[in-house]
Amino acid sequence: MLRDNQGYALSDGPSAPAAPASQPAPLVQPWPTAGAIGAEERGLLQSGDGIYVVDAHGRQLIDGPAGMWCVNVGHRNAALADAMRDQAMALSYNSPWYTTSQPSDALAEALAARAPGDLNHVFFTTGGSSAVETALRLMQFANNVRGRTEKKLMVSRQGGYHGSTYLAASLNGRPRDQDWMDGAGSLVRKLTSPDPFRRPAGMSMAAFEDFLVEEFRALIAAEGADRIGAFVAEPIQASGGVIVPPEGYLKRMRALCAENDILFIADEVVTAFGRLGSIFASQDVFGVEPDMITFAKGVTSGYFPLGGVMVSARFFEVLRQSNHPDAMFAHGLTYSSHPIGCAVALKNLELLEGGILDHVNAVSDHFQQSLKRLEALPLVGEVRGKGLMACVECVADRVSNNPLTLDLEVGKRIDAHCHELGLLVRPLINMCVMSPPLTITREQIDEMADILYRGIAMTMDDLVREGLWKG
Amino acid sequence: MLRDNQGYALSDGPSAPAAPASQPAPLVQPWPTAGAIGAEERGLLQSGDGIYVVDAHGRQLIDGPAGMWCVNVGHRNAALADAMRDQAMALSYNSPWYTTSQPSDALAEALAARAPGDLNHVFFTTGGSSAVETALRLMQFANNVRGRTEKKLMVSRQGGYHGSTYLAASLNGRPRDQDWMDGAGSLVRKLTSPDPFRRPAGMSMAAFEDFLVEEFRALIAAEGADRIGAFVAEPIQASGGVIVPPEGYLKRMRALCAENDILFIADEVVTAFGRLGSIFASQDVFGVEPDMITFAKGVTSGYFPLGGVMVSARFFEVLRQSNHPDAMFAHGLTYSSHPIGCAVALKNLELLEGGILDHVNAVSDHFQQSLKRLEALPLVGEVRGKGLMACVECVADRVSNNPLTLDLEVGKRIDAHCHELGLLVRPLINMCVMSPPLTITREQIDEMADILYRGIAMTMDDLVREGLWKG
Repeated sequence: MLRDNQGYALSDGPSAPAAPASQPAPLVQPWPTAGAIGAEERGLLQSGDGIYVVDAHGRQLIDGPAGMWCVNVGHRNAALADAMRDQAMALSYNSPWYTTSQPSDALAEALAARAPGDLNHVFFTTGGSSAVETALRLMQFANNVRGRTEKKLMVSRQGGYHGSTYLAASLNGRPRDQDWMDGAGSLVRKLTSPDPFRRPAGMSMAAFEDFLVEEFRALIAAEGADRIGAFVAEPIQASGGVIVPPEGYLKRMRALCAENDILFIADEVVTAFGRLGSIFASQDVFGVEPDMITFAKGVTSGYFPLGGVMVSARFFEVLRQSNHPDAMFAHGLTYSSHPIGCAVALKNLELLEGGILDHVNAVSDHFQQSLKRLEALPLVGEVRGKGLMACVECVADRVSNNPLTLDLEVGKRIDAHCHELGLLVRPLINMCVMSPPLTITREQIDEMADILYRGIAMTMDDLVREGLWKG
Repeated sequence: MLRDNQGYALSDGPSAPAAPASQPAPLVQPWPTAGAIGAEERGLLQSGDGIYVVDAHGRQLIDGPAGMWCVNVGHRNAALADAMRDQAMALSYNSPWYTTSQPSDALAEALAARAPGDLNHVFFTTGGSSAVETALRLMQFANNVRGRTEKKLMVSRQGGYHGSTYLAASLNGRPRDQDWMDGAGSLVRKLTSPDPFRRPAGMSMAAFEDFLVEEFRALIAAEGADRIGAFVAEPIQASGGVIVPPEGYLKRMRALCAENDILFIADEVVTAFGRLGSIFASQDVFGVEPDMITFAKGVTSGYFPLGGVMVSARFFEVLRQSNHPDAMFAHGLTYSSHPIGCAVALKNLELLEGGILDHVNAVSDHFQQSLKRLEALPLVGEVRGKGLMACVECVADRVSNNPLTLDLEVGKRIDAHCHELGLLVRPLINMCVMSPPLTITREQIDEMADILYRGIAMTMDDLVREGLWKG
């Protein structure tokens, strides 16, 4: 059992072993297992400041995952806190059905000016799931209005993650996500994850890229372009393990979509708003102009549930010219375009453009290099990433690069050690994902990488001692 | 064309006639029509205070719909604004996957203590749609885990509204909501709206109630109880027109659910948090103990996107004892249990219980009686409601009680006149829904009812003058 520096059992550490509560807790958190609902341990956080959070024992921890890839400008930002309060005292709410507000209009204009190409429109939601639902329902609606009622299939990839509502979740391709869940699977087709680390042994990167593109081309030929409505992709698969695709992959997939009148929807819930050094990454980082971009998280640095979809002018223009001008897109949320959320996002944008984006671009190489050094540890199969997101993937051995099937909890073990050393890690089975607040300094990056190195080394020792790994 | 008191065209009034913008606006708001996307007029609101909002011309308006049935404690509440800022400066965000926060735990406990029966657990979301998605996905998950994979049909009603994500929206039963939208219709069965005003001519209320209950019983017999997972119902259908069901209806529907092991899910997104004078209305107002209660809106008075599902202990206990303890409910949102949202909700709860609920119970009769007097106007077919929610339904004539088919825009016409007189109305085709902030005083209720009376009278004059209505 973990103990804190006073010797007390660390029962509330995020990675402490779960002990069944005598009475299930009222609060049920995401991704519970059936046998432990209301009894899963989740460590209490009491405060945050900059890149740090403080646990129930007063221990200061670097927030390695920035909450959930979202606290981009850092915790305890007074400018964002004041923006919330000020807007609440000006106009705390307005119904987007009948009215609009100054911050909503201003944010829409600001985002339209920053989105690539003619992505000049935005529909606001309350997060990533509802942003993806909005994009997909827009696709369905448009094809109904245009009389192309068969053109509705959605194409996603293994390893992708797009949300937790029924339709959005149907696109998810991570292991275990859909084992016990229902979904609209018959409307979805899934392609191979563009994961270079898992490409067939001996295959060149160029050949792997060709394979991925040809797989999509073959799918289009098999299903018929007139049956496929959209291709939905994270430019970098985030919770799938920070999968950076082969160099030319996104451009070629985008071109295939254009050739076949398939919407290319970039799910930038993680990659937008600074994580890769740009407001939107599709064009700036990958040279791709999507038909829609979904976003959330970093748009408010996680301070307020806000998301949305950027939509191209040409997409809406076709609808405006349709034979059914009265067809109603019966979709919208009570909190669409929330004035407080939009005010927070405007201030957040000002902070990002007031120096944080430049900082990200200045320290990204150092961040990637610092973590890359962890490949010296034999438990580490690969460190990969881009900008301020990276993944340390552990493997049983580096010949086969098999995942650590001997111990699916290896990420949790690393997290437990790191917690004691002052770092919150986001364990994903055998992977540790690092996506700290964007304000992290070079020195703090060094500290983070150092703790992670020591945490993994301690885990290696444990695994060898317990006879679970041969080292 | 409407003009303000300086004679300027009121082009930004919420109900001003839509003039196509020269360039479509960046911001696309809910429920646009294909031909006018980005060009629909939505009036700008610049500020709010108490029960009032102020439009772009400085005109003060009573907020008749409380935004979207949500600004329960009123606009510009300093206690809520301070709670947001204070929590943002303490802990602005924590990932609910790995951690928890003091306000999330405290709010969960507070709601569990106030929910009826053994509804001791809560799963937080970002609003009503995601709350309903969570409830439905929990039903699907539980029946998968229990090996009852065929017990998944969802039963809802005509006139109901449950959200704007694909699965939740499939339950919606209002006219026009699904004309151009896709949905999971094959998983849903719809019953008749329990609308006494629309019951067959000559049928007694008791007979109507029997009909509704027998319709459900017949559906269960036809489909088989082992194929129906849940019945989802707003205790009062809100945006369907404030439909108050016959006296014994909800209890009898609940009993039928219990007899057939069908989950009774009360969608209290509108009725909870004070609208009917209680925190939750199911038991306090209707004497019914559901298996789940979905909520949103009033829980934060609309200041922060928060919703959730109260879930019964017995529902989770069955899962904990299942043969698949490792089955994962792969569901959750980045903003589930958001610490700022939970802090706002805690303060909001304190305000409601610190006098506002008592106030609602004290003024509800006056509110209903004041509006009931509008039935003196021949355009008004019925005024109905409960607590601080009511609907004024206009009809072509009071013999047939037909909706005003001659002019589906009658609600908008009334809204336009009322706007000039100082009242924001929520027009729903031929209906005006009134659900003001709960802090409205008797005098303000009188003012609101008086404006509405005059606005409807002016509309009647217009319709007669234009030859659209014989009076």
